[in-house]
Amino acid sequence: MRRFDPLFTEADLLELWQSTIGIERETLRIKEDGQIAKTPHSSHWGDRAYHPYIQTDFAESQLEFITPPAKDSQEVMAWLAAIHQIAAQENDQQAEWMWPYSTPPAVPTDGKLKVAQLSNPADVHYREHLAKFYGVDVQLLSGIHYNFQINPRVLANKISPDADAIAVTNKIYAKLGRNYLRYRWILTYLLGAAPFVPGTYQTKLYGKPSQQPMRSVRLSRYGYMNDPKVKIRYDQFEHFVDDLEQAVEDGLLSEEKELYADVRFKQSKPVRKLMERGIDYIELRNFDLNPFAPYGISQEDIDFVKLFVITLILLPDVHSQEAVDQGNQLNLAIAEADPLAPHQQDNEVGWFFQEMKYLTQIIDQELQTNYLELVEAKERQMSQPEQTLAGRLHQLYQDQAGMVEHGLAMAKDHQEVYLERPYLLHGFEALEISTQDVIKEAIRLGLEVEIIDPAENLIKLQHQDHFEYIRKGNMTAYDSLISYFLMENKVATKKILENAGIHTPRSENFSQIELAKAYYPSIQDKAFVIKPKSTNYGLGISIFNQGASREDYEAGLKVAFKEDKEVLIEEFIEGTEYRFYVQGDEVKAICQRQPAHVIGDGQHTVDQLIDQENQHPLRGPQHKAPMTLLAKGDIERMQLHQQGLDFNSIPDPDQIVYLRRNTNVSTGGISIDRTDDTDPSYKDLAVKASQALGAFFCGVDLIIPDRTVPADQSKYGIIEANFNPAMMIHRFVGRGQVRYLGLEVIKALFPELKMTDNEHTTFPA
Amino acid sequence: MRRFDPLFTEADLLELWQSTIGIERETLRIKEDGQIAKTPHSSHWGDRAYHPYIQTDFAESQLEFITPPAKDSQEVMAWLAAIHQIAAQENDQQAEWMWPYSTPPAVPTDGKLKVAQLSNPADVHYREHLAKFYGVDVQLLSGIHYNFQINPRVLANKISPDADAIAVTNKIYAKLGRNYLRYRWILTYLLGAAPFVPGTYQTKLYGKPSQQPMRSVRLSRYGYMNDPKVKIRYDQFEHFVDDLEQAVEDGLLSEEKELYADVRFKQSKPVRKLMERGIDYIELRNFDLNPFAPYGISQEDIDFVKLFVITLILLPDVHSQEAVDQGNQLNLAIAEADPLAPHQQDNEVGWFFQEMKYLTQIIDQELQTNYLELVEAKERQMSQPEQTLAGRLHQLYQDQAGMVEHGLAMAKDHQEVYLERPYLLHGFEALEISTQDVIKEAIRLGLEVEIIDPAENLIKLQHQDHFEYIRKGNMTAYDSLISYFLMENKVATKKILENAGIHTPRSENFSQIELAKAYYPSIQDKAFVIKPKSTNYGLGISIFNQGASREDYEAGLKVAFKEDKEVLIEEFIEGTEYRFYVQGDEVKAICQRQPAHVIGDGQHTVDQLIDQENQHPLRGPQHKAPMTLLAKGDIERMQLHQQGLDFNSIPDPDQIVYLRRNTNVSTGGISIDRTDDTDPSYKDLAVKASQALGAFFCGVDLIIPDRTVPADQSKYGIIEANFNPAMMIHRFVGRGQVRYLGLEVIKALFPELKMTDNEHTTFPA
Repeated sequence: MRRFDPLFTEADLLELWQSTIGIERETLRIKEDGQIAKTPHSSHWGDRAYHPYIQTDFAESQLEFITPPAKDSQEVMAWLAAIHQIAAQENDQQAEWMWPYSTPPAVPTDGKLKVAQLSNPADVHYREHLAKFYGVDVQLLSGIHYNFQINPRVLANKISPDADAIAVTNKIYAKLGRNYLRYRWILTYLLGAAPFVPGTYQTKLYGKPSQQPMRSVRLSRYGYMNDPKVKIRYDQFEHFVDDLEQAVEDGLLSEEKELYADVRFKQSKPVRKLMERGIDYIELRNFDLNPFAPYGISQEDIDFVKLFVITLILLPDVHSQEAVDQGNQLNLAIAEADPLAPHQQDNEVGWFFQEMKYLTQIIDQELQTNYLELVEAKERQMSQPEQTLAGRLHQLYQDQAGMVEHGLAMAKDHQEVYLERPYLLHGFEALEISTQDVIKEAIRLGLEVEIIDPAENLIKLQHQDHFEYIRKGNMTAYDSLISYFLMENKVATKKILENAGIHTPRSENFSQIELAKAYYPSIQDKAFVIKPKSTNYGLGISIFNQGASREDYEAGLKVAFKEDKEVLIEEFIEGTEYRFYVQGDEVKAICQRQPAHVIGDGQHTVDQLIDQENQHPLRGPQHKAPMTLLAKGDIERMQLHQQGLDFNSIPDPDQIVYLRRNTNVSTGGISIDRTDDTDPSYKDLAVKASQALGAFFCGVDLIIPDRTVPADQSKYGIIEANFNPAMMIHRFVGRGQVRYLGLEVIKALFPELKMTDNEHTTFPA
Repeated sequence: MRRFDPLFTEADLLELWQSTIGIERETLRIKEDGQIAKTPHSSHWGDRAYHPYIQTDFAESQLEFITPPAKDSQEVMAWLAAIHQIAAQENDQQAEWMWPYSTPPAVPTDGKLKVAQLSNPADVHYREHLAKFYGVDVQLLSGIHYNFQINPRVLANKISPDADAIAVTNKIYAKLGRNYLRYRWILTYLLGAAPFVPGTYQTKLYGKPSQQPMRSVRLSRYGYMNDPKVKIRYDQFEHFVDDLEQAVEDGLLSEEKELYADVRFKQSKPVRKLMERGIDYIELRNFDLNPFAPYGISQEDIDFVKLFVITLILLPDVHSQEAVDQGNQLNLAIAEADPLAPHQQDNEVGWFFQEMKYLTQIIDQELQTNYLELVEAKERQMSQPEQTLAGRLHQLYQDQAGMVEHGLAMAKDHQEVYLERPYLLHGFEALEISTQDVIKEAIRLGLEVEIIDPAENLIKLQHQDHFEYIRKGNMTAYDSLISYFLMENKVATKKILENAGIHTPRSENFSQIELAKAYYPSIQDKAFVIKPKSTNYGLGISIFNQGASREDYEAGLKVAFKEDKEVLIEEFIEGTEYRFYVQGDEVKAICQRQPAHVIGDGQHTVDQLIDQENQHPLRGPQHKAPMTLLAKGDIERMQLHQQGLDFNSIPDPDQIVYLRRNTNVSTGGISIDRTDDTDPSYKDLAVKASQALGAFFCGVDLIIPDRTVPADQSKYGIIEANFNPAMMIHRFVGRGQVRYLGLEVIKALFPELKMTDNEHTTFPA
């Protein structure tokens, strides 16, 4: 690198690369005809008074999505994907899409556009002021804000022991701001993407633009512009603070935040506080929505901007206000120019990209990455305007009508992206599906989510000062440590349930085969199971439905003792097994597992019924979907054969045709919800069992001969109680009602959310 | 077997072998001069109103120990060992022993013997009635009660579907009672062991016995005897109930329990209730204390009696009252006979032992045991009275004075057995030592203890209706499941502690070596540690006390990345590491670990100082004692050499001479209690850390430069928080005060015990 800010060296590069990024993305909710939606911000999303991810910007229909700070572009993309998916699943209910451009498809001329209906009256009032002063139209512009926090370690290393740490921090950020304003035109040239506005569009300050295309109306004088009398100096940070205060004092701005600048210094308010507390991060605002990118910005562009900003940090300070003014003029000219017009700054571009490539090469070499290719592609675009975003759009259409047509097509495509694989949480697919479900509900409701350890599925949810940790979907502070060990220990579980007066299948534990043999008279004419104390895949288990001969009994013992030193002989209860999902003092779900099967209608063949069943939106390839596609293989053929059927048979109406014997999901088995048609006495039992074990979240397995007959008239048995009970078997059911157990976890942990109208999830089953 | 009760077959034998046994053992507390102790029953033991293990019988100084029902003699012995140890450790405080004979060493003639001072006035009144009616002397007799519960499965198998289950059960027990009364003389012959009583001893009914030795004064007419007018029939269970009620009605007995019979049917009271509810178990009472056995009965004799009882169950019913009367006469004659007098029942003994050996052989064959040897030895004693217990005693002394002398010698020997290895819980040595400690305190305080799973160290403690489960000493219902996982995860722990405003050593996590290299400027001149995220035995750790050169730094990274994909670079805090044991909102103990060392006195050599230190009662061979003996090996020699010393050097007064560098207990390291001389600000911090993690029991590791300087003036750091914190490092300390953390666990779990005067454990450090 030829030029360098004297404060920095090349050695800072990798530490700078570990700086933090956050993205804010705005978008208009639209109807399929391109009109701006008039529906209110959904009440299914948590209150905008605290929602950290889903907000509104100016208009009630102008969504603003905010990602939490992230270490890299992959993490940012994951959050963007998740938030878009969650918002889109709700929008889908109202047949609404997200408009992919920074300029609106239409401007409401009936004056009925509502500003965001926030709960704080001052927030509404501010928006009404903006509408009055600048006009409604300009406020409908949407964009990307790119938040960048310099790795605090780099800053700390630049502060000598006797220096004023805050002053140094502010100085470094102020310099970055200046440099950014000076060179940001390069980004506007590459990424500007708002060529047209509707014909009626106008601003109070500059009136109507021409209908000639430009790189970005949003970044032109017809975009966000303050009164030209607002003059803010950036040459020294103190000037910036003074000038901004003065502009408010002079009534040119109603509030400090009304300053429409492409750079904002965050975090303290008012601006003077930054002098005491220091700047926390910088907000860069001159990014149009990329209409090709479902999330408004591509991962490549997030990385490119990061490299761009780091280059600016390492470059010498442009220092003067003249340089800033020059940058502003360049940027405005580039924004207002024809998308295919070349720039006139070959020299500047030449050396700037030289520096950037030099730094990129070092990163690539150290981290085994390939960002150079990305930078070189952008460099090529500097002399090929037709390859820039605006240039590409210009080749697709030449007027506003064309832009709307293209925008609607992209909105539709993007909606399909948001809605695909609806059972997963986009961006977080590597987590357990139950953890994804909890996070999805938490984001929707506006809880802050932190992934503490993805490998452990350990997350933290927070609402204001109240936080809770959750592991694997439902292991929380509500369950006690000892109940976990009690449930892990089947002998202890049984003892405790029996002490609580709950019927568990009678069982005896033997460690000597001769003693087990002597037990024969006690069970010879009963139904029982012989099983090794610990068993894998059912090895060593013998089931005797109606007693056993001594010979068979002893053979069963031999097999079991081969697998384990301890063997259980357990009463066998005739009936169907149900899983009761207990949370606190309530059974939230009951399900029954069934092997892969189809149900006849008297008209279609088994083959056709399988094809129909495979249309189920939850069915997909093994391990890739909540339910597995039904197969037509040899095992299914044999199973049909045993029932006197083949794939061409036409089963009777309501005839259940089994394709498998095992209930595993991976071979097409399903769960059937039985929550509402099971006698309540069994629910009481399950809760009693859970409480006897001191559990809060508990999966209780009951065998019940007839679930409509009350427990006191039935020969039921509790066979197991499980900590961390599976949630997804109730969330994704083959038949019956879906049970949103992720939401239930949140309701238990955050009762203060008082979910009145947003308690029902809108996520598809 | 030639004769069989028609109800049973040989196939019942192994099931009968799995019947349940419990032992009650009485003993007089005595002083070393052989006088009965006049001290009250210790208030350190839990209240006799509920104590399940340590009670008093007739006199305040007459201890009664009760074991819970057990499946085999080994388990019974474990309980006897534990209860004796716990009682003896308290007795030891008052220089008291346990008298090993059934007849007292002396009878208080001053009338000052106190009956048991129980809290229920009716209980005291009953004892005063006994003293008045039968005399005090006879009430001082002590014995063993052997409780036997027939395996309920055997009973269940004998009950046909239309039979009255309770009637069948009572019939079987009543028959066992009859047979026992008929043949118990054999046990009295073999195990009678109370040849003399003090010269002043007398009974109200029969006056003074002669001073001639007999097998058992306790079982003679001078022992427990009701008024001869009390006639109880055993030929039918209904007769037994009628006669006992009649005796009370006639005023011959004050209560049903006043019946001094060698057989009692338990459990319901009054006796008539047995007809409704059924007999639960049978109590056999004609066992003298075996003075050779520290616990009053040997394991062999427990097994022998079990075989004897099972034989009686399988033998035909003796049916008639005449047979019972004959048995009573035989038993009385045997008890009152000279210890060396032969019996006259060769025929009966012959066939009886034939039957018993036949059954024993089957058991031995099926279960790979060797009980036959035991039965054959007893059989030989039937014709060798000098080998019986009474016979053996007769060879040791011939008068009461000799018996007292022998009794005192045995009492002293037994006391040594009880007091050996005081840091373990006798009988439960296979459990973790912390679990042993909790159980020991629980038994002392009178909580019911159940070992749910020994391999898991999972136990249940119960007081009345309130029960708690404990795993590994302090994992309980008080700790939450999620806090366990949070503490398991060091990254999560750190995040949470930092959020709570607690200083943890600053650390950064790297998964790429190049990024870790780039971090160099941030730590180059600081003290820091490089360590793999997961490490075993310190592999891959580099410590830099005062910064590092870039070369050394990168070498350290390489070593660490060899061990793990993730590497932590952590601030190194200068100071001493302390372990804070937090329970709820209190720090119950603080300790510091030190390597093996001795402290000079200016007079003795290192060699001599080591010998002195090895006298510490907690020191013993590696893994066999709470602290390990100091060694004088090559490592110690080298360590001394580094300090310019050898084994013959005489260190200065107070000079600390290290023999090792590592603090491990297994190489002589010790812990030093620092609970009372650490600034309270650190205790507040440890509690805060534990609470931030949602923990109840938590071990917090702090590094502190000077523990007397408050935290706000100190550069301390919390380096770790641990669930299930070690208790024994505070319980067994090399220097400083012992912290009884097992007791603290119980106090937390059972606040209702309101431990006022018995909260301080009397167990030795």
